[in-house]
Amino acid sequence: MKHVVVIGGGTGTFTVLSALKKYPINLSAIVTMADDGGSTGMLRDQYGVLPTGDVRRALVALSDSEGILRELFNYRFKEGGLHGHSFGNLFLAALEKITGDFTTALREASELLNINGEVVPVTLDDVRLYAELEDGKVLRGETQIDIPRSSLRMPIKKIWLEPEAKMNPSVRRVLHHADIIILGPGDLYTSIVPNLLVKGVPEAIKASKAKKVYLANLMTKFGETHGFSANDFVEKLEKYLGKGVLDYAIFNNKKPAAAVLKKYKKEQAEFVSPEGLNKKSKKPKYILADLLDSDGLVRHSQKKLAKVVLSLL
Amino acid sequence: MKHVVVIGGGTGTFTVLSALKKYPINLSAIVTMADDGGSTGMLRDQYGVLPTGDVRRALVALSDSEGILRELFNYRFKEGGLHGHSFGNLFLAALEKITGDFTTALREASELLNINGEVVPVTLDDVRLYAELEDGKVLRGETQIDIPRSSLRMPIKKIWLEPEAKMNPSVRRVLHHADIIILGPGDLYTSIVPNLLVKGVPEAIKASKAKKVYLANLMTKFGETHGFSANDFVEKLEKYLGKGVLDYAIFNNKKPAAAVLKKYKKEQAEFVSPEGLNKKSKKPKYILADLLDSDGLVRHSQKKLAKVVLSLL
Repeated sequence: MKHVVVIGGGTGTFTVLSALKKYPINLSAIVTMADDGGSTGMLRDQYGVLPTGDVRRALVALSDSEGILRELFNYRFKEGGLHGHSFGNLFLAALEKITGDFTTALREASELLNINGEVVPVTLDDVRLYAELEDGKVLRGETQIDIPRSSLRMPIKKIWLEPEAKMNPSVRRVLHHADIIILGPGDLYTSIVPNLLVKGVPEAIKASKAKKVYLANLMTKFGETHGFSANDFVEKLEKYLGKGVLDYAIFNNKKPAAAVLKKYKKEQAEFVSPEGLNKKSKKPKYILADLLDSDGLVRHSQKKLAKVVLSLL
Repeated sequence: MKHVVVIGGGTGTFTVLSALKKYPINLSAIVTMADDGGSTGMLRDQYGVLPTGDVRRALVALSDSEGILRELFNYRFKEGGLHGHSFGNLFLAALEKITGDFTTALREASELLNINGEVVPVTLDDVRLYAELEDGKVLRGETQIDIPRSSLRMPIKKIWLEPEAKMNPSVRRVLHHADIIILGPGDLYTSIVPNLLVKGVPEAIKASKAKKVYLANLMTKFGETHGFSANDFVEKLEKYLGKGVLDYAIFNNKKPAAAVLKKYKKEQAEFVSPEGLNKKSKKPKYILADLLDSDGLVRHSQKKLAKVVLSLL
């Protein structure tokens, strides 16, 4: 069976994992460990556990369980003293407290959820994400970067982790066996690049014989990729991954209806047009395809995503 | 296989269930639903769920799972915003929210925990326990009754539930099939009698062809059974169960070491001496036996408990 490795975190990774898990492939997800917002942030601060949010989403995506446990992992308390807490996060935090380490907790949760594949935290170190903006301002914490407080936000100049993070040894193993490595889709600076900030990860990706693929986002995101062209996405990713590492970059070429895009205007999110990409480029080679879901929302169609990714195997 | 039904709640019921589950019998636990303290109380108040504490303890006792889920159910957050919350309670509360009713939640949890037997909430109504003291003072809520705030506490004159509670239909089923029904051990007014306050329960016990057995406590409890003689325990229980219903009452006759009893003095708990019981009584017949654990704590030996109970089958 072919080995497919997805690198990211957040809902983009959830989508691509959900899309691919239906196929007879060996699937692993390497996920960022820099989340510090909401339920995850509270648990980190109050219980000294590692961030559970991105791991949880990947577990749920890969869970083969038809049972209630998968639903429980997705449940979020909506009021009272537990307001905002995801039950899955509480589950993983309690497991880490009981077993004494995150890796054992993750293994137990993976078994309980009957997951089809493997979820690999990119690091097991307790790290925070930092960003320096073009005006020199420094932001601490993924949440600060992810959710801009003001409607004015300078572009991100560079991001890094503190303290320096060691790579989880399992990352090297799954990358080594990979036939294809997929980066994205997802928030560039808060889901994708944080994986590449962990020492040794870009080198391990480069050293793998797998095809390296960037799955681009459909829309720009305010505070992270505001005003980005398709080229900008690739260029910024390569800044952290290394130039010449990507074999393919996949972009959607189906523009959503104007009425739909209008709704996104409020969030200052814009369609990423593949126009302007150098069609003759070999590294990466650009693949343009209709990847849009037909439900009227601007999101990837799982079926179309899977088709284009699996065609590269 | 013989059907054994245990009626109670709390740690006494946990002990007797743990003791009996090792034997080839069909085991059910009918548990009180009047808990309103600590983690359970917070969840009742904030999420409108039914009380989970006594159900949780019975589930853990009956769980055949060697896995981590049983440990998780017992885990309690020790600090932070979740301080005092039992993970098992959060689990059951989230399950009730997802499934929409307590019975389904309980069934799902029973399956996940691979329980050997059945846990039956005595009622599915949202009720509170009330007590009137000898001086006319009325206490609302199990916690108020269970944990006296002052070192002076008048004896309990009577207790009741508000609003009136309907019996869970499953109670009648398990009592009907029972070969033996065991009341206790446990706090008389906060674990045992609240089951008998649910409309129809004393009648259903009486109507059962099973042997009816009272398993008495080793020690008195301040605020509930302070100063009680062995006879008082039986008399007060019969006040709610009905006179002439009990076939047997089992008392421990091994007095703990004086040094051990001294520690209990601080909690104003005293040894329940079986002296004074009418040895010639036929209803109930008194069974006196050494039931004390040999570990130096004043608690029931699971082995000895099981032996004396199973000898009645």
